[in-house]
Amino acid sequence: MLTAWHKEIEEMYEQMVAWRRHLHENPELSYEEVETPQMIAQILEGYGIPVRTKVGGRGVVGKIEGAKPGPTIALRADFDALPIQDEKDVSYKSKVDGVMHACGHDGHTATLLAVAKVLNQHKDELAGNVILLHQHAEESSPGGASEMIADGCLDGVDYVFGTHLMSGLPVGTYNCTKGYAMASIDAFELKIQGKGGHGAMPHETIDAVVVGAQVINQLQSIISRRIDPIKPAVITVGSFHAGNASNVIADTAQLSATIRTFDKDVRQSIEHDIKQVIKHVSASYGATYELKYENGFPSLYNHELETDNVIQSITSTIEGIQFVDSPPSMASEDFAYYVQKVPGAFFFTGGRNEAIGASYPHHHPKFDFDERAMIYAGKGLLSVAYKYLVETVKDSVEIH
Amino acid sequence: MLTAWHKEIEEMYEQMVAWRRHLHENPELSYEEVETPQMIAQILEGYGIPVRTKVGGRGVVGKIEGAKPGPTIALRADFDALPIQDEKDVSYKSKVDGVMHACGHDGHTATLLAVAKVLNQHKDELAGNVILLHQHAEESSPGGASEMIADGCLDGVDYVFGTHLMSGLPVGTYNCTKGYAMASIDAFELKIQGKGGHGAMPHETIDAVVVGAQVINQLQSIISRRIDPIKPAVITVGSFHAGNASNVIADTAQLSATIRTFDKDVRQSIEHDIKQVIKHVSASYGATYELKYENGFPSLYNHELETDNVIQSITSTIEGIQFVDSPPSMASEDFAYYVQKVPGAFFFTGGRNEAIGASYPHHHPKFDFDERAMIYAGKGLLSVAYKYLVETVKDSVEIH
Amino acid sequence: MLTAWHKEIEEMYEQMVAWRRHLHENPELSYEEVETPQMIAQILEGYGIPVRTKVGGRGVVGKIEGAKPGPTIALRADFDALPIQDEKDVSYKSKVDGVMHACGHDGHTATLLAVAKVLNQHKDELAGNVILLHQHAEESSPGGASEMIADGCLDGVDYVFGTHLMSGLPVGTYNCTKGYAMASIDAFELKIQGKGGHGAMPHETIDAVVVGAQVINQLQSIISRRIDPIKPAVITVGSFHAGNASNVIADTAQLSATIRTFDKDVRQSIEHDIKQVIKHVSASYGATYELKYENGFPSLYNHELETDNVIQSITSTIEGIQFVDSPPSMASEDFAYYVQKVPGAFFFTGGRNEAIGASYPHHHPKFDFDERAMIYAGKGLLSVAYKYLVETVKDSVEIH
Amino acid sequence: MLTAWHKEIEEMYEQMVAWRRHLHENPELSYEEVETPQMIAQILEGYGIPVRTKVGGRGVVGKIEGAKPGPTIALRADFDALPIQDEKDVSYKSKVDGVMHACGHDGHTATLLAVAKVLNQHKDELAGNVILLHQHAEESSPGGASEMIADGCLDGVDYVFGTHLMSGLPVGTYNCTKGYAMASIDAFELKIQGKGGHGAMPHETIDAVVVGAQVINQLQSIISRRIDPIKPAVITVGSFHAGNASNVIADTAQLSATIRTFDKDVRQSIEHDIKQVIKHVSASYGATYELKYENGFPSLYNHELETDNVIQSITSTIEGIQFVDSPPSMASEDFAYYVQKVPGAFFFTGGRNEAIGASYPHHHPKFDFDERAMIYAGKGLLSVAYKYLVETVKDSVEIH
Repeated sequence: MLTAWHKEIEEMYEQMVAWRRHLHENPELSYEEVETPQMIAQILEGYGIPVRTKVGGRGVVGKIEGAKPGPTIALRADFDALPIQDEKDVSYKSKVDGVMHACGHDGHTATLLAVAKVLNQHKDELAGNVILLHQHAEESSPGGASEMIADGCLDGVDYVFGTHLMSGLPVGTYNCTKGYAMASIDAFELKIQGKGGHGAMPHETIDAVVVGAQVINQLQSIISRRIDPIKPAVITVGSFHAGNASNVIADTAQLSATIRTFDKDVRQSIEHDIKQVIKHVSASYGATYELKYENGFPSLYNHELETDNVIQSITSTIEGIQFVDSPPSMASEDFAYYVQKVPGAFFFTGGRNEAIGASYPHHHPKFDFDERAMIYAGKGLLSVAYKYLVETVKDSVEIH
Repeated sequence: MLTAWHKEIEEMYEQMVAWRRHLHENPELSYEEVETPQMIAQILEGYGIPVRTKVGGRGVVGKIEGAKPGPTIALRADFDALPIQDEKDVSYKSKVDGVMHACGHDGHTATLLAVAKVLNQHKDELAGNVILLHQHAEESSPGGASEMIADGCLDGVDYVFGTHLMSGLPVGTYNCTKGYAMASIDAFELKIQGKGGHGAMPHETIDAVVVGAQVINQLQSIISRRIDPIKPAVITVGSFHAGNASNVIADTAQLSATIRTFDKDVRQSIEHDIKQVIKHVSASYGATYELKYENGFPSLYNHELETDNVIQSITSTIEGIQFVDSPPSMASEDFAYYVQKVPGAFFFTGGRNEAIGASYPHHHPKFDFDERAMIYAGKGLLSVAYKYLVETVKDSVEIH
Repeated sequence: MLTAWHKEIEEMYEQMVAWRRHLHENPELSYEEVETPQMIAQILEGYGIPVRTKVGGRGVVGKIEGAKPGPTIALRADFDALPIQDEKDVSYKSKVDGVMHACGHDGHTATLLAVAKVLNQHKDELAGNVILLHQHAEESSPGGASEMIADGCLDGVDYVFGTHLMSGLPVGTYNCTKGYAMASIDAFELKIQGKGGHGAMPHETIDAVVVGAQVINQLQSIISRRIDPIKPAVITVGSFHAGNASNVIADTAQLSATIRTFDKDVRQSIEHDIKQVIKHVSASYGATYELKYENGFPSLYNHELETDNVIQSITSTIEGIQFVDSPPSMASEDFAYYVQKVPGAFFFTGGRNEAIGASYPHHHPKFDFDERAMIYAGKGLLSVAYKYLVETVKDSVEIH
Repeated sequence: MLTAWHKEIEEMYEQMVAWRRHLHENPELSYEEVETPQMIAQILEGYGIPVRTKVGGRGVVGKIEGAKPGPTIALRADFDALPIQDEKDVSYKSKVDGVMHACGHDGHTATLLAVAKVLNQHKDELAGNVILLHQHAEESSPGGASEMIADGCLDGVDYVFGTHLMSGLPVGTYNCTKGYAMASIDAFELKIQGKGGHGAMPHETIDAVVVGAQVINQLQSIISRRIDPIKPAVITVGSFHAGNASNVIADTAQLSATIRTFDKDVRQSIEHDIKQVIKHVSASYGATYELKYENGFPSLYNHELETDNVIQSITSTIEGIQFVDSPPSMASEDFAYYVQKVPGAFFFTGGRNEAIGASYPHHHPKFDFDERAMIYAGKGLLSVAYKYLVETVKDSVEIH
C-alpha cells in the first residue's frame, strides 16, 4: 500500500516542479508572504482539504481526517524566501529583485502539497489524522513556528515531522540525527560608549576600539574555559565597527554577534558569561554600553523514538537510498519549537547534484537543488505517515 | 626702534583683520590653494617685496634684503584650510561649503603679511635679510614644508622661526618649548585578510575580527613594554571595520592608526615593533595582510639657543605678556622640516578669549581666535627679527 | 551456563576482597611494580594458567585455551598505584608512605584474577581463547599498554575488553559509550626566554611575564575559533611560573599544559595551532623559547559492534543492573592503544556507595569503592566472554 | 675662600678612603644598622660637632652653627647596605656574608663626614647653619627619610641637598635634573582566587592562570591608553606564580608588581586604574582576589632654583668638571621626602672608571666606584654650602 503512495508521488513530479518553479519565480520575504499562502490554501482546498489561513499571522493549516481513529501527526513545510539576489541562469529565476528562494522552502512547499494530495486520496486507510503545517517566516525572528503554535496549530497533534532539502547531501541520501540536531541561535548587538578625542591624547579619552578588542578577547575564554568541552557552543562576533579616522580616538564601537548552543543550561550560562564580560570589560575602562541580547530559536531536539521511526520507516520502504550519519549542525531551525511541544523529528533530504550545478551552499545566490529531491522528500514523509497512521494499527508497533 | 616696529604693527590691526576675514570667507583646501597664494603675492609685491611663486608647488616666498650684511632669517606662515563645515555665526563665516580655516592659518598669513610690511619699511635698519615663507598644505601629507625646502626656500637661510595661534592659550600669553616640542606623526592602514564563513563554523574560517582584536591587544604592550617610559609614544588605532552581519564570520578587517613619537630612535623601533606584531599575530592565525605604513612629519625640535632667544626677545620687549611653560605637544607640524635643516624655533601665540567665544579647540567647527592675537603674533616675530638682525650688530649677542 | 559462571564469581567474593586488600596495603608505583606482577603470576600459575611475565617490561599475560576453535578475546586489568598519601581510616590502608591505590586498579586486578579462575574452570565450554592482560603503568607515560602491545600481547587477539571501577557510578550500574569514550592526552612544557632587567626599564628587556600571558591569551582562541565546535577539545595551562621579585622583569617564564581531544585530526591541528601561537607570540616580542610537546595516550574509541555486544550481553544476563548513558569523558586511558589494534570496548562498572564512604573522586586521598563492585565487574567480563566464546557458536550471532 | 675648603677636602682623601673601606668591610643592612651610626656619631663628636642619635630609629643628625645669622641647610648621606654577596676581588671586600655596600652609601657617608669636618673648621665664615643628615635604611620601605623627618630632623631647615655617587657617570661629571628627577615607587601583591580542578574540565573551575594572564594583558592598556603620554609611568608585573601540574587547573595565581611614576596625579590615577582592572577582570571570570597595594617613596622633585644653584655653584667653582644632561631616572630615592618638605636638590656625582673596574651597575655584586669621586662629591656639597651660607651674604644672591 505504501508502494502505491510512493508511486503516486512519483507521478506528481511534474506538478511539484511546476509549483516549485512558480514559487521560485515569485518569492516572498519573511513576514511579507501574501500570494504564497493564498496559493497553498487554494491548492489544498482544491483537493477538498479544509484549511485555516492566517494562522499565527500568515500560516496555512490543512487537516486530513483519517477514516479510523488513531493519532494525529503534523507535517510541516516552510514557505518564505530570503533577501538575496538570484544569480542563477535558469528559466525559473526569481522575478523579484533582491528576493530569492535560496534555502529550498519552495521545494518544501511543493513537496508537502503533493504529500497532502496523496494522503488525502488515501484517507480511508488512515487510522488517525494529518495536520499540514504550511509555515511562514522561518528565516526571520521570532519566526512563524512559535506564532502558529500560539495560534493553536499543534492542538490535538501527537507527533510532528518535517524535512529540509539539503545541498550538502547528494540526492538519494537522508540524515536524521538523534537528540540535539540543530543549534539554538541567540544574538547580541553591543554599542560600547567610550569618549572620543584626539588620537595623540588617549588619556583624555576612553578608547572604544581598545575596549571592543578586549571584549572580543575575553569572549574567547568563555568558550575555552567556561563551557563543558563536551557541549558545543559558539560565540561569533560577526561585525565590529568603530571610528572614522586614523588619528581620532573612536567614541563608540558597534559589535554584533551570534551565539549557538545545544544544551539549555549552556545557553543560559553563556548568556550570563557574555553579559559579565561586557559589563566588566567596559567598567574596567570606564566605558558604558548598550546591549541588546536576543534569544532566537531554541536548539532542535529530535526525540529518540521518533528519530528511530523516521530512519526505520524510510530505510525499510524506499529502495536505493541511504541514511548517512552526520554530527549535529550548528545551524538553526524554528522547527525546534514544534518538537518542544510534541514528540517528533526533523530529517534532511539530499538535494545535491553537482552535474546540474546544484552544489552551492544554502543562502548562496546560486543555490539550487535537484528537483527530484522533492520525490525523495515526499516519499520520506509518506513513509513516516504510513508508519504512524497505518502500521501502528496493523502491527501494534510501539510508536511512543 | 623695536618700539616703533611694534607700534606700526598695532596700526595695521584693521588691515590684518580685513585680510584674515577675506581668507576666512574664502578658504582653500591643502593642495587646492589658488587664490590665496595669488593674494599673498599681490600684497607683497604691492609693498615692493620681490616674490617667487609656486615654490614647491603652491608656496610663495618673499625676500627683504637688509641694508647691512648679516644673517638671513626665515619667517613662516601656512595658508591652507580644512575640510570642515564652518558652524560659527559670524559675519566672516566661510563661504565655501565644507571648507573652513579651523586652525588659524588665515591669521598666520595676515600676520606675516603685516610683519613683512613693517620689516620692509625698516630694511635700512636690518643687518641681514628676511625670507618670508608663505606655505601651502600644512594640513596634509606630505605637506608644503618639505616641498618648498626641496624647491630651495631655505637656501641661504641661517635661522627659521614661526608661530601658531593657539586656542588653548589666552591672548597675551606665549609658549615655546625647548627641544622636542611637537611629535612626529606616522600612520598605517592595515587590511587583515582572513577567510569568511558561517558564523556557526569558526573552524572553517579565519576570523578577521578576532585577528584584528589581537593585533590591537598586542599593540598596547609595545607602548607599555618596548618603549623607554621617559620617551613619549602613542599608538592609536582610530578605526576598526569588519563584517556586515552578526552571524557571518568576517573575512577582512580594516584598521587605521596614528603613531606619535619624539625621539627618532623610538620612531624607528616602534615602526619595527608594530610590523612585528602585525606579522606575527596574523601568522599565528593563518591570516595574511596588507600594510601601508607611512612616515609623516618628523618631530619638531626647537633648537636650544633659538628657543632662548625667542623667549628672551619677546619677554624683554613686549609689555603685559607672559611666557607659559607647557609640556611638549603630541600634535604635529611640518615646521619640523625647517628646523631639521637650519636652527630655529616655533612658538605658540595665545588666541583664546572665552568672552567672545574663541574657546573651541583647533579643528572644531566653531573654532575661532581673538583677532588681537595677530598683534601679539606679529610683535613676537618682529622682536625675534630685531634680535637677529639689529641687536646682533649692536650688542654682539651670541646667537648661535 | 553463564548463570553458573556468575555464581562462581559470587563465591569468589571473599577471595577477591583478600587479594584486593593485600594489593591495597602494598601498592607499587608505575614502572616500579615488582611484587604485584609476581603475585599475579603466582596466582594464575596456581590455577594452571600459563603466564608470560615481564611483558613489555612488567606486564603479566596469561592464556586460557578453549576446547573448541573460535576467536581469541583479551581481557585487561591494570595494576599500578599512584603517588598519593592514603588518608582513609580502614584496616586495609596503604602501608607505603605516599603511595596508594587511589584509582581502583587493585580491584581491577582482583577481579580479573577471579574471572581467570572461573573461565579456566570452564575452558571446555569455550570456543576460542582468553588472553589475560595484567598491565603495569597505566598512570604514567608512555604507559604499559603500548609497551605490552609492542611485546606481542595482542598477537592473535581478535577482540579486547576491559572495565574500570568508577566512583561516579553507583554500584549496580554500568556505562559504555559508543565511539569516542575517553580523550587523548598530550602535554607541553614551555620555557619562554626573554631578557630580564630592572622593573623600571621595560624597554631594555623582553618581559617573559607579558609574553607568557599573551601566549595563554591566544591559546584560548584556538579552542574558540580553530576547532570544530562539535568536536571537544581542551587546552589547560596548568602552571605558569616566572620571576622572583616585584621590581625585576622576569627573564624566563615556565608554562606547562595538558591538551585533550577525541578526533585525530583535531589532535593534529591543535598541536599545529599551539605551536604556531607559541612561535609567533614569542617572535612578536623578540623572545625565544624551548618547547617540549609530548603526545600521550590517544583517545579511546569503543567500536560500535563491540559496544553493542557489551551492553547487550550484560543487560540481558545480569539482573537488577542498569546501563546508564553518559557523555564521553575528557579523562584518558591507555586502553586506547588496545582498541587501536583490535576491535573492542571499555566499560565502566559502578563502585560508588555513599553509605560506606565510597564517594570520593578518583585520585583523591580518600578514594575507595564498594568491594561488591568487583562482583559486577567480574560478571560483566564473564558475560562478554560468554557472548564471544560460547554464544557465537550456539547462535551464530554476528560479532563483527 | 671656597678654594681653601676644596683644598682641605682634597687633603682628607686618605681619611675618606679609610672610612669608606672600613664601612665597606663592615656593611649593615637597612634597619639593622648599629655600628655604622655609632662610628658616625663618634667621628662627628670627635670634631666637636654636637649630634643627636637614633633619630627616626637609627639616624644620626649633626649640627654646625655658623657665626653669623642666615639660613639653615641640610646635607644628607645614607649609610645602609644591601643583601648582596660581594664578588669583588679587592682588599676592602665585605666581611659580612651576603651583605654589601653595592650602592655607594659607604662613599656618601665618608664624604659627608669629611665635608662636616671642613665646614666645622670654617664655621666662623658661615652665615647660617648646617644640619648633617646621616640616614639609615634608604634601601628599604618605609625608609629612614620619612622616619627622620617625623623625628624632627628638618625642623628649622630651609634647604636640603644630597648627592649620590653614580656608576653610570664618569668621575669628574655631575648631573642634576630639574623638576622630576627620580620616580615614585609603589607595589602590589595580588592573589587571585579561582577554583581548581581537573585539567580536562575547565567549566567546573575558575582558571586562575587565565584570569592572571588577562589581568596582565589589561594592565598594559593602562600605560598605553590611560596615562598622558608625556608623563612617564611603568607597571611591571615582576612575578607570576600559579599551579603545580600541567593537568590540574590552578586555583590561585600570585602576582607581584612595581609601579613607577613622576606626576602625583598619574600616581593616583594609575593606582585607581590598576584596582579597576583587577576588580573587573576577576569579576568577569567569577574569581575573587586579595590585593595589597603599597605606596612607597614618592617621586623626587628637584626644585628649580635650588637645581640652578647646585649647577651654577659647582660649575663656577670646580675646574675640569662637567655637568651632563640626562633624562629623569625611573629609579627611586627616599631623598624625595626631604624635598617634599623644604626646597632642595639631589645631584649625581660620577663614580665610573672603567680602567679600575668601576663600571658595574648599582646593586651588582661587583659594583664599585673610583674613590676619587668622594672628592668631587665633597667639593660639590661644599660649593653648594658656600653659595647658601657665604655668598648669599656677600652678594645678596637670590636663593629662593
